[in-house]
Amino acid sequence: MTESDNGSLMHAETTEAAAAVERLLSSEAKTFAELGRVVSARRPPVVTVAARGSSDHAVSFFKYLFEINAGIPVASIGPSVASVYHARLHLPGALHLTVSQSGASPDIIAVQEAAKSGGATTVAIVNVADSPLARTADIVIPIHAGKECSVAATKSFIASAAALAALTQSATGSDALAAGLQRLPTALDEACSADYERALAAFVQARSVYTTGRGPGFAIALEAALKAKETAKLHAEAFSLAELMHGPMQLIDEGFPVLAFVPEDEALESSSQALDRLAGLGAHVFAISSRQAVAETIAVHSTGSGHLDPLPALVAYYRLIERVARERGFDPDTPDKLSKVTETL
Amino acid sequence: MTESDNGSLMHAETTEAAAAVERLLSSEAKTFAELGRVVSARRPPVVTVAARGSSDHAVSFFKYLFEINAGIPVASIGPSVASVYHARLHLPGALHLTVSQSGASPDIIAVQEAAKSGGATTVAIVNVADSPLARTADIVIPIHAGKECSVAATKSFIASAAALAALTQSATGSDALAAGLQRLPTALDEACSADYERALAAFVQARSVYTTGRGPGFAIALEAALKAKETAKLHAEAFSLAELMHGPMQLIDEGFPVLAFVPEDEALESSSQALDRLAGLGAHVFAISSRQAVAETIAVHSTGSGHLDPLPALVAYYRLIERVARERGFDPDTPDKLSKVTETL
Repeated sequence: MTESDNGSLMHAETTEAAAAVERLLSSEAKTFAELGRVVSARRPPVVTVAARGSSDHAVSFFKYLFEINAGIPVASIGPSVASVYHARLHLPGALHLTVSQSGASPDIIAVQEAAKSGGATTVAIVNVADSPLARTADIVIPIHAGKECSVAATKSFIASAAALAALTQSATGSDALAAGLQRLPTALDEACSADYERALAAFVQARSVYTTGRGPGFAIALEAALKAKETAKLHAEAFSLAELMHGPMQLIDEGFPVLAFVPEDEALESSSQALDRLAGLGAHVFAISSRQAVAETIAVHSTGSGHLDPLPALVAYYRLIERVARERGFDPDTPDKLSKVTETL
Repeated sequence: MTESDNGSLMHAETTEAAAAVERLLSSEAKTFAELGRVVSARRPPVVTVAARGSSDHAVSFFKYLFEINAGIPVASIGPSVASVYHARLHLPGALHLTVSQSGASPDIIAVQEAAKSGGATTVAIVNVADSPLARTADIVIPIHAGKECSVAATKSFIASAAALAALTQSATGSDALAAGLQRLPTALDEACSADYERALAAFVQARSVYTTGRGPGFAIALEAALKAKETAKLHAEAFSLAELMHGPMQLIDEGFPVLAFVPEDEALESSSQALDRLAGLGAHVFAISSRQAVAETIAVHSTGSGHLDPLPALVAYYRLIERVARERGFDPDTPDKLSKVTETL
């Protein structure tokens, strides 16, 4: 890994996301096809998932994608349910997915064991293929992201989310997702040069910001908020755009920054309207979108599938927040209180 | 509804929570018994839930309680999945619960319809028994909280959470939950006079705070964070104590307030240790607990069931944050940007 011109590994690793996804989709085509057959044949009554940190947001992205496209409910099991509270899970016929960059945290291994004992087929989606989690799973999907050195996950997040999208495509046979996945590497690559300047000053100066979206866009807003805390020490919090209109709106005073992920999907029109209302209340509203969703929109290209478009939008955001971190005086690669692999129980 | 001495409806309505729970448990004993029989007999492969705002946190509380005690996964369906993305849900044999004070928001009605079409038995947990949601549900549980006038939900939240705990007790036959439910009204009542003074100054002066916990305690931390935004315009955000040790820790500088819900359950010891680590990093750590979990603990009485103890702890927190709101110059009953019933799609 060589550092990029601006010296940050986060910047370099974001650039590598497109190649990682391309590698993943070509190397694991057979695994996705096999998993798709398993899901179509068994029709699991529920898919359970477990993950921590950024990986947990990839899982949220999957939850929306899978519930919308397959209609099967996805239940995220808090790792403590197994690791601390020692629940005996009853999961006959279920599929259990774990997403983990390192595949090493004891708590998600405990959930995978409990799911297996409860009757589920277990799938581990990992970057480190030779990890304790992968060794004990029924099926392994390596995400092929390569070594990731910045503490802030970027390409490993994008590749995990792409793996979960490919799984959804394979299980549902969706033509729209298939076409979108094919265009995804190009769209990710193009998003690396998105012009984020319009949002820079507001984020550099902010005390608090909200990130938002609906459906798959909301899941990506969760990841964006975590990244702002980790790299730029900025108190960003994510809400679905519908929830934001409840209690959280109370924090929005003149100039309060709100950044929305607005893909070209079924929520496009209602999202634009809601964002206009927020702007009317004084919020400084930004969007990342392939459409002119609000006055201040950071433009990205569409994959042609609205449900996948939050991923290139996230690449544009990674570019933005990496720059915000540096302008606020932080090194995005080495937050002083964090380490790359966190093991929790 | 008469206002209390300090003039806030929120204060008065928090005091009424104990009586509401007592009413609920005696009036709906038969409904809980019947639902318990339904769940034991059918053993649904999954319980789906839908809710917004505070009610969504009651649902998170239920998710932990039910997964820990019954081992059946609980999937919270984002209302947009039905209302915006028009997913066709497949829920044969499932139970679908909706929690809503008003029973009127179109999006959760849309999820209930989609769940019913998908084969689920639907249960509406509402305060307004004659509401569109209740009229179209298979089974209705009125929470008996009485009219709630403050925009900030208090007694309706506690009563909803108690209803979901009673449902869990009935479905699992847990003696511990049964005994805890019996003592719950007394513990709620006692918590109204908890001494929260030690946390007051830190919260009044804070820009940002974290609320935290594990399992059922984390669910209550979610509700606490929302209440801080709504009533005191304080940017509080909730994390599970395990997640807090990942990225969110980066925000914690000297004096950053962290408030933990630490019931006497399986997580007590590991939670105290994690909180000590946070204090070592400079966080100003407070706990609400029936044990001396950290140096600065707001004492409440236990119900005898650790899984229910976050509810009296929340009553103590409602007292605290109501006072914080007033000291910061806000009327907790009438946040300027919010209304009591929010209808979203």
